[in-house]
Amino acid sequence: MDDLAQETCRDGAPALSPDEAETLLARLGGWTSDGQAIRRRFTVKGFARAVEMANLAAWLGNRQNHHPDVTFGWGYCEVAFTTHDAGGLTRNDFICAARLDALTA
Amino acid sequence: MDDLAQETCRDGAPALSPDEAETLLARLGGWTSDGQAIRRRFTVKGFARAVEMANLAAWLGNRQNHHPDVTFGWGYCEVAFTTHDAGGLTRNDFICAARLDALTA
Repeated sequence: MDDLAQETCRDGAPALSPDEAETLLARLGGWTSDGQAIRRRFTVKGFARAVEMANLAAWLGNRQNHHPDVTFGWGYCEVAFTTHDAGGLTRNDFICAARLDALTA
Repeated sequence: MDDLAQETCRDGAPALSPDEAETLLARLGGWTSDGQAIRRRFTVKGFARAVEMANLAAWLGNRQNHHPDVTFGWGYCEVAFTTHDAGGLTRNDFICAARLDALTA
């Protein structure tokens, strides 16, 4: 488990430079970045598992006070993190991604 | 409440013609169609309401055995229905849309 998953989101985290974001992204598996958000698509069986995954991501977002955008349907759940307040990616996004990976590992 | 909301989804419903789909769409409020799927964006307060709405749509999909694609995040929940088996829109999509409208009215 990446130690990012041990960190806690902090309000007012500053926007990362592209290099900083790239370095953090390299510590995650399965996440992609478009520079504004990071996202991961989880493939699951059927619908109920997708709903479970969506609620897990929601629970994590509430717990960290850093809320994802989640899309789910039959066979998949896609989770995206971005930091609207910072206008892009912050460390909080990567912390939540690592925490979600740890929860689902 | 539109009486579509009184109907029940049926397995194997046939694809609708564009005219048929247009006629059913006109009976709904707030839904748009791209010819392949219908969708509605619900604006809500905060995050918890969005999660609630996503779970309501999921519950409805399970109940009707016709599962939506749902996207949610802070302040919104977007629900889409399509019928993969038919390769487009069927009456089932409009029944679920009308039922969701009735539930949230």
